[in-house]
Amino acid sequence: MQEAQAAAARGEVPVGAVVSDAQGLVLARAGNAVEATRDASAHAEMLALRAAAARLGGKYLAGCTLTVSLEPCAMCAGAIAAYRLKTLVFGAYDPKSGAVEHGPRVFSHATTHHRPEVVGGVREAECAALLADFFGRLRDA
Amino acid sequence: MQEAQAAAARGEVPVGAVVSDAQGLVLARAGNAVEATRDASAHAEMLALRAAAARLGGKYLAGCTLTVSLEPCAMCAGAIAAYRLKTLVFGAYDPKSGAVEHGPRVFSHATTHHRPEVVGGVREAECAALLADFFGRLRDA
Repeated sequence: MQEAQAAAARGEVPVGAVVSDAQGLVLARAGNAVEATRDASAHAEMLALRAAAARLGGKYLAGCTLTVSLEPCAMCAGAIAAYRLKTLVFGAYDPKSGAVEHGPRVFSHATTHHRPEVVGGVREAECAALLADFFGRLRDA
Repeated sequence: MQEAQAAAARGEVPVGAVVSDAQGLVLARAGNAVEATRDASAHAEMLALRAAAARLGGKYLAGCTLTVSLEPCAMCAGAIAAYRLKTLVFGAYDPKSGAVEHGPRVFSHATTHHRPEVVGGVREAECAALLADFFGRLRDA
């Protein structure tokens, strides 16, 4: 939530992500940075996952948990599978761009190499309110 | 194909990718670098897409074409949508990890924000042979 709020303050769509290890130690945290980096792939999840892998020095994040304020898109869900995370926890559901419980349902296919435990809707109202507030202000601007 | 061959020579799964603009100018090219970078997200497509966006200085790659030797996975297909590429050309089909014509079929959902033109199976036999040769040598090693 802090990363999402900080992203909003920077004019970014407010999404924040944290990667923690099996002991709950935070390995990396990031907010959405698409505008600041001028990079459409700079979603909070991608930034946090890459930083966590770099910190651990390994290719994978087995045993780790990604906690993110919004249901991941196909890119980020695919990255979660590629990094072999143990658990995905997300806040708001995203019927428009989400790819876990909507659309491509990336982890729901027989071909999925890796299927994390998924816990969706955690502090959903707060996470969704941050996004609604951000887009509401954009519309009013 | 050159990037895929170079990746194989480095001990990487041989996949290569090129991003070109509407005039056919190559903006970026990359081979798979998961082993070298110790980063499970360092697929050829992700590296080429990020480099192309950095070169153009914009968030998106509208009008551009990604050409890659293997059907993209969910992460890379999601990135193609995020960057809003005009066209995706790929070589070998990937029934195991592909997410364009298999599994999640990332561009085949009503919720997809962006759906590129997709041309699959270009020089399919050559692209597939590179992969089969690589994995065959791994098995024999």
